[in-house]
Amino acid sequence: MEEIKLLGTAASSFVNRVQFVLNLKSIEYKFIEENLACKSDLLLASNPVLKKIPILLKANEPPICESLIIIEYLEEIKPDIHPILPPKPSDRAKNRFWANYIDNKFFPLYLELSYAHEREIVKDKIIKESQLLEEVFVKFSNGKAYFGGDEVGYLDVVLGCFLGWTKFHEKRHDFKVFDEVRTPKLAEWVKRILSHKAITGVMPQEDILMDYYMMRLK
Amino acid sequence: MEEIKLLGTAASSFVNRVQFVLNLKSIEYKFIEENLACKSDLLLASNPVLKKIPILLKANEPPICESLIIIEYLEEIKPDIHPILPPKPSDRAKNRFWANYIDNKFFPLYLELSYAHEREIVKDKIIKESQLLEEVFVKFSNGKAYFGGDEVGYLDVVLGCFLGWTKFHEKRHDFKVFDEVRTPKLAEWVKRILSHKAITGVMPQEDILMDYYMMRLK
Repeated sequence: MEEIKLLGTAASSFVNRVQFVLNLKSIEYKFIEENLACKSDLLLASNPVLKKIPILLKANEPPICESLIIIEYLEEIKPDIHPILPPKPSDRAKNRFWANYIDNKFFPLYLELSYAHEREIVKDKIIKESQLLEEVFVKFSNGKAYFGGDEVGYLDVVLGCFLGWTKFHEKRHDFKVFDEVRTPKLAEWVKRILSHKAITGVMPQEDILMDYYMMRLK
Repeated sequence: MEEIKLLGTAASSFVNRVQFVLNLKSIEYKFIEENLACKSDLLLASNPVLKKIPILLKANEPPICESLIIIEYLEEIKPDIHPILPPKPSDRAKNRFWANYIDNKFFPLYLELSYAHEREIVKDKIIKESQLLEEVFVKFSNGKAYFGGDEVGYLDVVLGCFLGWTKFHEKRHDFKVFDEVRTPKLAEWVKRILSHKAITGVMPQEDILMDYYMMRLK
């Protein structure tokens, strides 16, 4: 099989989600760790416009950039091995809608938390969002284990890969996002997704997150 | 055929791109004009999370929101009539990458232009971006008429529907974005796309844009 390379850093949720899907689809790949403080020539040549990771490189193909685009690409080249999007167009649209929501509304609150003066206000916003995500989970999972139903799907990947950072911020800012009382279904889901074999080895440990956090704050 | 409704406003490029694809795919629809200063109950019930247009409503289906997601949805329900995405996964990924780029980097500069104190700086940025888009056009079109080649494709829709606003800002701020010297290929493309039969009747006239602009500035 032709070699696939993934340029990224182990601490990035956006990179982790690509790794998760590569594992789900049993696609072998070589991980190339990037130093974002000093980006490699390969990174700059592969994504000259955004200069961002993740980047997927496949022989004789142009580089594929941006996590959600890479995931759609992997789904298209390997549609039969662990499909992560449902077959029905309206269900696919709903998955994409909530993925955008998580990326553009939920995740940015954590960035806000790092810089905010009024941290309690941001924490309250995150808690409110987590309760909305609980409702989304209840609808999508329909009593089953994952957003994707019986199997890990698109939103399990998108939200699941962010859990390392969720826990990091919970500890640092002394609060809990997905808890047994407010978001009981998601609290169970967190345990389930973190023990999934395709994500084990992908989720970064706390020391890696701390290094990344300190570099970003500089 | 079951009825399709589109909630939007005639002045929105994001709504226009859905109309363009509906026309390309010969899908009949009923347009429901929204007053964004006083959003309808139907809008709020259909997209309670973002409260934004465009929204596509199809009988017995959940509402589909966000322009790029709606376009993918239309492509999936009518894949054989005027496909706008190419069949090869890496080409599809490239289309999605540049659509995101246009939405997240190019369009926001026009918003910046409306509010900026230092307008000349923003104008220079827009000019620089237009030259990058000229390069993208040359690569995608490969000597043919459109980003999509011989036929209107995804990026023709995404960028094409913004041309009403481009011209509006050009006139208001006395500069030219796509011109014969700096961006000769795109300058030709502008004329070609604006005379395409599927976009005629969709592109808003200047008075509609002015009303919208004044409402947004309030």
